[in-house]
Amino acid sequence: MPSALSTRVMIEDIRRVAHAALTRAGCDHENAAAVAAVMAASERDGCVSHGLFRLAGYLGALKSGKVNGRARSAVRRLSPAIVQVDGHGGFAPLAMLKARDAIRPVAREQGIAAAAVVNVHHFSALWIDIEPLIADGLAAMCFTAYIPTVAPYGGREPFFGTNPMAFGWPRPEGRTMIFDQASAAMARGEIMIAARDGYTLPAGVGIDSAGKPSTDPAAVLQGAQLPFGGYKGSAIALMVELLSGGLIGQPFSVEAGEEDNNDGGPPRGGVLLLAMDPGRFGDSHGWLTHSERFFERYAKLEGVRLPGDRRAKNRERIDREGTALPADLWQQALAAAGDLREDKRQ
Amino acid sequence: MPSALSTRVMIEDIRRVAHAALTRAGCDHENAAAVAAVMAASERDGCVSHGLFRLAGYLGALKSGKVNGRARSAVRRLSPAIVQVDGHGGFAPLAMLKARDAIRPVAREQGIAAAAVVNVHHFSALWIDIEPLIADGLAAMCFTAYIPTVAPYGGREPFFGTNPMAFGWPRPEGRTMIFDQASAAMARGEIMIAARDGYTLPAGVGIDSAGKPSTDPAAVLQGAQLPFGGYKGSAIALMVELLSGGLIGQPFSVEAGEEDNNDGGPPRGGVLLLAMDPGRFGDSHGWLTHSERFFERYAKLEGVRLPGDRRAKNRERIDREGTALPADLWQQALAAAGDLREDKRQ
Repeated sequence: MPSALSTRVMIEDIRRVAHAALTRAGCDHENAAAVAAVMAASERDGCVSHGLFRLAGYLGALKSGKVNGRARSAVRRLSPAIVQVDGHGGFAPLAMLKARDAIRPVAREQGIAAAAVVNVHHFSALWIDIEPLIADGLAAMCFTAYIPTVAPYGGREPFFGTNPMAFGWPRPEGRTMIFDQASAAMARGEIMIAARDGYTLPAGVGIDSAGKPSTDPAAVLQGAQLPFGGYKGSAIALMVELLSGGLIGQPFSVEAGEEDNNDGGPPRGGVLLLAMDPGRFGDSHGWLTHSERFFERYAKLEGVRLPGDRRAKNRERIDREGTALPADLWQQALAAAGDLREDKRQ
Repeated sequence: MPSALSTRVMIEDIRRVAHAALTRAGCDHENAAAVAAVMAASERDGCVSHGLFRLAGYLGALKSGKVNGRARSAVRRLSPAIVQVDGHGGFAPLAMLKARDAIRPVAREQGIAAAAVVNVHHFSALWIDIEPLIADGLAAMCFTAYIPTVAPYGGREPFFGTNPMAFGWPRPEGRTMIFDQASAAMARGEIMIAARDGYTLPAGVGIDSAGKPSTDPAAVLQGAQLPFGGYKGSAIALMVELLSGGLIGQPFSVEAGEEDNNDGGPPRGGVLLLAMDPGRFGDSHGWLTHSERFFERYAKLEGVRLPGDRRAKNRERIDREGTALPADLWQQALAAAGDLREDKRQ
């Protein structure tokens, strides 16, 4: 079934086409650039579920009026170690850029800092949101909820979002170790792609609407996804709800679902970002060498790999060669972009 | 096989006997009281793997001289939002008490704060370490590594510790929602108890020393435990290593294992504690009501329960009725305690 026609496209072209399509649908340049950069970065790292595949959702949310494509974030210091970034109903990428700019000096000054990013519509990958901070030498964690898609352990009804969390650790010369994982057993985007391409799912990913285990992606999208790792993954999902919802005054997934207009785009919600300066935690001279020694020993283990290694390899190759997009996805994006010459600031 | 003789013992008697045994083995009153309280609290909540079962390990570490039973922690402010608590080679419980006292005002003042607890020997449950903070209205997270017991996803050699993390969220009237979970599929203490009592393990918990999946607890203790939830649990274990090792200048599990004298007691290591004041994150008036509404909806879901619910139920019952200890465990504890009348400050 994965025999649909594909087209090889360079990352820069994906970025330009996404920018043009977003601009045509109502984004201003700054928002279009931030969102297009996120989709391009996903494709470049081989993460197709957060790449151009999401364009239709972004456009749908602009067309329905749910998301303001011209929103500007307001940054406010809530306490010595906490900043709030209010996205004012825009897409998350531009607000996350502001959040990184705001949290960086606070983390350096305080040792640890939090950014409560509120009133944004988050539809991208968290590793992209934190990578620039990690490359600057900070450790970071990031959490966001979604709309009900995952049944808590033991249950049958969707209640949690896919609820990703990311963690990143700085390495020499701006390199990074980052993992970014849904607390669902599988990212929803991957299930949607499996449905589109006719794959079956591994066992344990979801249940159908009668609560029975299913490997049919369409049935699972109608039923409920399952958390990874049983009750422990379910606890992580619950933590993500409390950190990105309850803590910062943003909707829990179940509330976001009720509020959402189901236009296929991202719901309104919050993102919690934590940043730590490893130089301030008691081992200011040794921490980088110490952790590199640890990574060296880890790399010598047979059969294991570091989170993010595959992305790093994809990046190098795809930057050079481009990526193979489903031909119809690319055609739809081109159609949405219209005449590229009209998009002056791409 | 779980037909070994058992003895019903009241929690207060467990605490007194543990205190006397620790004192006889070289702890001063403050350390004995803190460690005994932790074992008693574990038994009271039905968490036998961190209860009196651990006494032999604590005593072994005192007898070998690895742990200083009279250690006093030193508290130091590393940055506006970070405190360091140096346990000076003692058991963790007294240092964690100091860490809670130190982090509380800093979290209130800064909004978010970290305590880097270093040079401690941690052998207890993290939920006990954070519960008093949560009961005081703070949210908290806690991480600690151990000695190599868990093979990273895809690997066959123990490299990570069991690496628990805990997260807690405050509820009205001092109640708490806390989860505390090893990033191993099963806590090592539970596997040790399965070996002792002759149970077999569920599939997926571990591999034998040849790298083959095994349900024999003795074979898994010789081989390696597995992370929960495949590569995602493995990523959590890696994060715990970096937060409680690399970030705060403490040994990674693999280093702690090399340094340890294998006396059966806890290795030297660090604990990272984060505390957040939900009143400072932008929803100072609404956060408690908002999250309670969320818990109410969660509680209505069929088949699910909140993390910690079982512990809360155990607590009420066991406080009243006492708990059934294996008779030989209780006899050994009584023998280690000697004449209780000699332990004046219990």
